[in-house]
Amino acid sequence: MKSINIAAILFTLALGARADEGMWLFNQPPRQILRERYQFDATDAWLEHLQKASVRFNSGGSGSFVSADGLLISNHHVGADALEKFSTPEKNYLKTGFYARTPAEEIKCLDLELNVLQSIEDVTARVNAAVPASGDAAAAFLARRKVIAEIEKESLESTGLRSDVVTLWEGGAYHLYRYKRYTDVRLVFAPEQQIAFYGGDPDNFEFPRYDLDICLFRAYENGQSAKVKDYLRFSPTGAREGELVFVSGHPGGTSRMLTMAELENLRDQALPFRLGVLKREEVMLAAWSGRTEETARRARGPLFGVQNSRKALDGRLAGLLDPELMGPKAKAEADFREGMFDDSSRWDAAQAAFGQISNATKALAAQAVRYSLLEGAQGFNCASFRLARTLLRAGEERPKPNGERFREFSDSGRLSLELGLFSEAPIYTDMETLTLSDSLTFLAGELGATNELVQKVLAGKSPRDRAVELISTTKVRDTALRKRLYEGGAGAVTAARDPMIELARLVDPDARALRKVIEEQGEIKQQAHAAIARARNTKSGNGGYPDATFTLRLAFGKVKGYEEEGKPVSAMTTMAGLYQRATEMNNRPPFDLPPIWEKRKSRVKLSTPLNFMSTCDIIGGNSGSPVVNRAGEFVGIIFDGNLESLPWDYAFGDKQGRATSVASAAILEALNQVYDAQALARELAAGHRPR
Amino acid sequence: MKSINIAAILFTLALGARADEGMWLFNQPPRQILRERYQFDATDAWLEHLQKASVRFNSGGSGSFVSADGLLISNHHVGADALEKFSTPEKNYLKTGFYARTPAEEIKCLDLELNVLQSIEDVTARVNAAVPASGDAAAAFLARRKVIAEIEKESLESTGLRSDVVTLWEGGAYHLYRYKRYTDVRLVFAPEQQIAFYGGDPDNFEFPRYDLDICLFRAYENGQSAKVKDYLRFSPTGAREGELVFVSGHPGGTSRMLTMAELENLRDQALPFRLGVLKREEVMLAAWSGRTEETARRARGPLFGVQNSRKALDGRLAGLLDPELMGPKAKAEADFREGMFDDSSRWDAAQAAFGQISNATKALAAQAVRYSLLEGAQGFNCASFRLARTLLRAGEERPKPNGERFREFSDSGRLSLELGLFSEAPIYTDMETLTLSDSLTFLAGELGATNELVQKVLAGKSPRDRAVELISTTKVRDTALRKRLYEGGAGAVTAARDPMIELARLVDPDARALRKVIEEQGEIKQQAHAAIARARNTKSGNGGYPDATFTLRLAFGKVKGYEEEGKPVSAMTTMAGLYQRATEMNNRPPFDLPPIWEKRKSRVKLSTPLNFMSTCDIIGGNSGSPVVNRAGEFVGIIFDGNLESLPWDYAFGDKQGRATSVASAAILEALNQVYDAQALARELAAGHRPR
Repeated sequence: MKSINIAAILFTLALGARADEGMWLFNQPPRQILRERYQFDATDAWLEHLQKASVRFNSGGSGSFVSADGLLISNHHVGADALEKFSTPEKNYLKTGFYARTPAEEIKCLDLELNVLQSIEDVTARVNAAVPASGDAAAAFLARRKVIAEIEKESLESTGLRSDVVTLWEGGAYHLYRYKRYTDVRLVFAPEQQIAFYGGDPDNFEFPRYDLDICLFRAYENGQSAKVKDYLRFSPTGAREGELVFVSGHPGGTSRMLTMAELENLRDQALPFRLGVLKREEVMLAAWSGRTEETARRARGPLFGVQNSRKALDGRLAGLLDPELMGPKAKAEADFREGMFDDSSRWDAAQAAFGQISNATKALAAQAVRYSLLEGAQGFNCASFRLARTLLRAGEERPKPNGERFREFSDSGRLSLELGLFSEAPIYTDMETLTLSDSLTFLAGELGATNELVQKVLAGKSPRDRAVELISTTKVRDTALRKRLYEGGAGAVTAARDPMIELARLVDPDARALRKVIEEQGEIKQQAHAAIARARNTKSGNGGYPDATFTLRLAFGKVKGYEEEGKPVSAMTTMAGLYQRATEMNNRPPFDLPPIWEKRKSRVKLSTPLNFMSTCDIIGGNSGSPVVNRAGEFVGIIFDGNLESLPWDYAFGDKQGRATSVASAAILEALNQVYDAQALARELAAGHRPR
Repeated sequence: MKSINIAAILFTLALGARADEGMWLFNQPPRQILRERYQFDATDAWLEHLQKASVRFNSGGSGSFVSADGLLISNHHVGADALEKFSTPEKNYLKTGFYARTPAEEIKCLDLELNVLQSIEDVTARVNAAVPASGDAAAAFLARRKVIAEIEKESLESTGLRSDVVTLWEGGAYHLYRYKRYTDVRLVFAPEQQIAFYGGDPDNFEFPRYDLDICLFRAYENGQSAKVKDYLRFSPTGAREGELVFVSGHPGGTSRMLTMAELENLRDQALPFRLGVLKREEVMLAAWSGRTEETARRARGPLFGVQNSRKALDGRLAGLLDPELMGPKAKAEADFREGMFDDSSRWDAAQAAFGQISNATKALAAQAVRYSLLEGAQGFNCASFRLARTLLRAGEERPKPNGERFREFSDSGRLSLELGLFSEAPIYTDMETLTLSDSLTFLAGELGATNELVQKVLAGKSPRDRAVELISTTKVRDTALRKRLYEGGAGAVTAARDPMIELARLVDPDARALRKVIEEQGEIKQQAHAAIARARNTKSGNGGYPDATFTLRLAFGKVKGYEEEGKPVSAMTTMAGLYQRATEMNNRPPFDLPPIWEKRKSRVKLSTPLNFMSTCDIIGGNSGSPVVNRAGEFVGIIFDGNLESLPWDYAFGDKQGRATSVASAAILEALNQVYDAQALARELAAGHRPR
């Protein structure tokens, strides 16, 4: 079939033949490819076990169960956010690391939610049936939001499981995902950040790498460690070069289906703007970090996040500016559009769809900066503003019927919303003042200081003075107050006369209007993309996989090195390489080793594999995903991709692009020889606590 | 007279009464103020001695002679550029410091030019007479450029001195400055950068400070150390709190005369854009610095420059967003314009001038980004491009009559141009590729990747690939080749078919067109400002001082602390404070001390003053300026201003704003007790070498 061929062209853009591409749905796995290429049979049982052993960190990452007693592993950089929230200047777990030798020593995280996927149901027909065929975009958007909220609520009430309707193929299909939730999650083990993020920003996204980027937690239910049936057996030896491996995790989002109009907008407008924002924040946080030990501790998490995003987006933009990526993309789209003329009405719809997407992209671009500043809150960058706005909107949205609310206030999302809103995580006034002051300055620069809204926001003060005033007088950092206002509703929120909530109220008419524009244009794009997807016929069976949506996906590939400037880069690094790197960099931060690693060097088997590369198709959100072998055993954990993998957002290519993992052997070696955490190592090896 | 009163309002904006404001011309010194306020008589002899002992670093800073044998002192951060150019990975003088114990050990700088002001002549009448009264702006600009080039060339030929016509009061007056040039300048002493820039970016522009930001050079003539009559006697004790002090140096530029239209353009457009560029560069250089010891060494200078500018501009922008600064500015302008109606035709011209400035500002703003990218070369940010364009333009400009060339190619500027063009300073291909790749990406983002010029510039390649190609194939890094092409003229330049020169040629029509727009609109603004200045009548005697122009100025003020959040900040720090700061910051970089400072701690008199603040009116370019007492003795050296001084670009205020200096006593103490540089200390004390 023609459409399949064209889809095949689109899916193998700039790839060598037989690239191990794809972030596959667990209910539409690449069985045929695996059978033909690797003589591997992905049975239902194999898939279900892997699915239920995989964990989503709602804070933005992946992980997996590795013991029947609820022990689970993720990346240190995924867990760091949780660690930070119960660290203090005196007990800085990022710096010192942490190991609970007994269950009693395990520390409960403040607001961490984990999700484990239980089932997937296709609800495309019900969603589409509820959306008027010829309504305008606004009506279609509201109808779709309503039916999705209904489906989610029904499912939540009937199963008790977290229920999310996921939009796939940009609207080509809707699947209902049901998750078991864990909100009592406790920290078991974390190494020092120094070794977990060894080499810091300079080595991030590079290879060779030497990171022990792991963090172990335990899920609890009813005050007891959770008993889990599906957990991964830990392989003490790990994977060999050339071996077939799988990644089961939650890629956050990709943009492979975008049209050229959308890619060009990203390249020329959206990414440059976003990068400007990130670089501005990075400079602000780095400069502030330098002031004292404590400012460095407070800024660590946000600074890591910003640097990580900046490096990733710089890499993506480089991809979009590379004719080797964009040339084939443009050709594939042109070929596809040309091929439309000789077929049925489905093709006509798809043809028209490209024009609709182009127009909607222009309409969105025209509002993008204001949207980012006001609805995206980039002009009011601080936790206090975000909390204040959530309180304001909760008061306004919650009395509405479930299906008519902003999505984040729907009944099915209530528990997750409240977990965040009532979090006891610390908020630092000095950092709040810093970031709010900087973002008010940014707001004034982007809209002009004489802009009417800017003048109202600043209220006759300089950005700095206004930030000091707002942060020092708002009460929203008080969790008890937030609970009171949330429960008291709009009346209580208004009566509080809190200056930050009043600022949110001042901005809200504009912010809501912008959100409406974005929703409507997004609806137009979604319908158009769905039409193109239908034309591509990708929904049928093994035709392909949809763009990533922070839902569970299966990737596969080989443990494999690559060539750089004619020289081979080996697929694996070892403990010996770690010590060597520290020496060649004169132990200068961020290349210094934690003292315990120096002290225990003689005990460490230096030939132990530390990090390895594979051709598995991943993206941000996959951090912490288990890497498993044919037997479904845990052989490593994804923590990064190399620079060449960054354009995977737009197209996969395995000439040089690689996913990067910590080897399972390194984890056991470090626990046993460096950290004296033999009990934990034994739990990993046995798959359960000593009995 | 009304105009004088209004001028007085403008000059004391947001100041307390009797603020020690002003960057005064040496030929129009504030004699009356000094007499009335401080009972100090600034005699012609006192002024001439100070003028001729003051030195301009053409690379962008100030300094002064401190011995009859040509010894001169500036800041380490002014000299660092010269130090870097003869440093290597093996001999890194920034890191190790440097001391020439004998004249033979003094190292010659590669391309450093020093200027010492010999005389000032008012040439306003001759310049104005040559400019047609009713011509268009383009004709006026060309006529003015021509007469200025004539005056400069005549002066150079008749005196042999470097001769620059300086535009003062934005065109209200033209003065001819004649300088003695020194181009054989040798390094005598530099401390480690670690102590010269102690506290790094975090402590930059802050107080208390603990920097030994000094660097000593010796001027040579005909292979011998220069014999200078006018040098400053070095005060071993320095200045006391409350004492009257003077600063004689070269403030680079201020914007105090700008109209509200111009200030608003700076606030809402120019500064936000410039800050975006700086933050982008800072992130790029900081990330690259982190890769290896050698990348850190190579990026040090540019990174310092970028961070320093970023912090300064953030401070300026904060000033422009502060109603306490802008409110009085707006009121003064409104009062001034209102006052115009009841006076003569001069007032009418000034009234019209505000409208002309507003229109010209809009016209300039519309081209500002393209100007910055193409003529400002922000889209081609690397030394190779700048050299290539100089070669290209030299070939085209030099055959023209002197008065019709771009100013930088005029006969009077030839020696300085060639000093830079033929410099043997190293150019690093890895850093060139980095910065060119980044700036081509920036160019594509600003103009759009589908822009015709961008497509020609990238030639079908990604920014990275194009940068690699250009940097690896251009030959302009070869000084001998540059000499050949420069001497061979346009024909030789064309025949070379150098890819970087051809890139410059590709861009040049657009770049020249933009420069023409900027020159014409600048001419309109200059004429309008001159009309306003005439109305203010500031040219007459002690009426005021013009905006800074990187020419010699005299400032005065008191050694004085200030209050911050109700707490007094002392005017002086001591050696004891330095050691204390290192301890409280756990010796974490950039708060670690050089080993020799730890080792010699017991020898250092801890009560020795290290840094001090004063109310002297300074700005960037004043770095390295001598601070002298009533007796004209050297009591310290300017190296910084505090954060509150940054808005001095637009208006002086001494409520909290302060200039920061190294105390003379600290210099002697460090040379004697830390560095065992007793011979050098003796030369400072005696004012000449041991005889």
